[in-house]
Amino acid sequence: MDKRKVYVFKIGGKVIDNVDARKSFLEGFAALSAVKMLVHGGGVIAEQLAEKLGVKSEMINGRRVTSKDMRDLVTMVYGGQINKSLVSELQAMDCDAMGLTGADGHIITSKKRDPTPIDFGFVGDVTEVRSHLLIALLELSLTPVFAPLSYDQEILNTNADGIASALAQSLVKGFEVHMMYAFEAPGVMLDLSDPTSLIPQLNYARYRELLLDGVFTAGMLPKLEECFKALRRGVQSIVLADADNCLLAAAGKAFRGTRLVL
Amino acid sequence: MDKRKVYVFKIGGKVIDNVDARKSFLEGFAALSAVKMLVHGGGVIAEQLAEKLGVKSEMINGRRVTSKDMRDLVTMVYGGQINKSLVSELQAMDCDAMGLTGADGHIITSKKRDPTPIDFGFVGDVTEVRSHLLIALLELSLTPVFAPLSYDQEILNTNADGIASALAQSLVKGFEVHMMYAFEAPGVMLDLSDPTSLIPQLNYARYRELLLDGVFTAGMLPKLEECFKALRRGVQSIVLADADNCLLAAAGKAFRGTRLVL
Repeated sequence: MDKRKVYVFKIGGKVIDNVDARKSFLEGFAALSAVKMLVHGGGVIAEQLAEKLGVKSEMINGRRVTSKDMRDLVTMVYGGQINKSLVSELQAMDCDAMGLTGADGHIITSKKRDPTPIDFGFVGDVTEVRSHLLIALLELSLTPVFAPLSYDQEILNTNADGIASALAQSLVKGFEVHMMYAFEAPGVMLDLSDPTSLIPQLNYARYRELLLDGVFTAGMLPKLEECFKALRRGVQSIVLADADNCLLAAAGKAFRGTRLVL
Repeated sequence: MDKRKVYVFKIGGKVIDNVDARKSFLEGFAALSAVKMLVHGGGVIAEQLAEKLGVKSEMINGRRVTSKDMRDLVTMVYGGQINKSLVSELQAMDCDAMGLTGADGHIITSKKRDPTPIDFGFVGDVTEVRSHLLIALLELSLTPVFAPLSYDQEILNTNADGIASALAQSLVKGFEVHMMYAFEAPGVMLDLSDPTSLIPQLNYARYRELLLDGVFTAGMLPKLEECFKALRRGVQSIVLADADNCLLAAAGKAFRGTRLVL
């Protein structure tokens, strides 16, 4: 018997911050008839609020350190403001969304990152998704909407890509899982300055070749590594494209972007 | 067959704001073996943040007007900060809490309050609880934790007492429902300045007599009216007491407070 398809979308950046881009994406997402869920990142709202409230945000090696105050702030902004406004906007579009953090039903547990060599503060890396609860929510025809927050006896700031990947992997036993990473860029490119260099489909063998050629940027590499790990663990395909093209891909239409397969 | 009991707790004020009172209550609540849920109010955190951010909070006839900015702020504070910290604290006490606003799964829908004669802004009065979803969550052994926010095509600021009452009423068909209103006062009193005047049990007939005698304060009256309405609609009993005594009452132990019955 064919497995049921499920689509795990991850959005961030301007799809959250820009009113028009956000509305356009949410309308398309709400209209998708497939089983689906949404993971959102932070956007600029948390940084703006942190600045207003004088909550300091240190960076070490290009990575943000999450102080306790900053954790409380992102709990408020990611788990409250962004998550609940996405949920209410989707509900108004007749999509039966339910907003969750990893603490809710301890659905996404994590391990607080080791403070050595660098103490990133209140940051966690996902260790487990409580898939039977996630599936129970899907069976209630709900569309889960996840904030980038996980739970390790307390709430921890957590990379949204990692959450999306863990959610997708947790469902491979019962579902044919497709991940849709909404990007600012059109997809994976051989040359960021050349739009014609977009790679429409990339498998692991070709990825390894390009990797050795030094094609991928430092920002792109961990993302691709994480994606191929998810594919090896049973995720069927992963699309990296802008938000509108992710929607086209999920609807089975022609799209401009990169599809990753094993 | 006896109906299964469910306890709907409502907390606010110092049980949210005071670290020790809060921990003590949550430990007792987590330890209750019964089917249960929690509704929380706002506390002083929203007001403090509003002041810091310069979000104005107008009062008309002693009632707060919720501007759009204030609605966004309470969505963040009630739906994010307070709700998610309660959830993660309960999870750390092995209570499988799941935080919700009325928008999540449109579980609590409301009607935005008529702008005439007084425009209270983004405030809603509960019209419906989606009880089949609520029961499905209870059947997953989850403990729902509700922020005082409902949904009418958008998120609306909503009285926590009204939410607790509506949740309780929505369950009377399948459950024996008990409400536990955690109060700052020890319960319903004939004379607020006289602790010995606490009324341990109050039925509707006696309530009407006392009402005509002018015993109840303007703040207490609408609360009691709402409680007796809930009882007439099938809620079994309502306890008004401080948080610790609400827990004793729910555990079937002797408690100091007022039990309302029909």
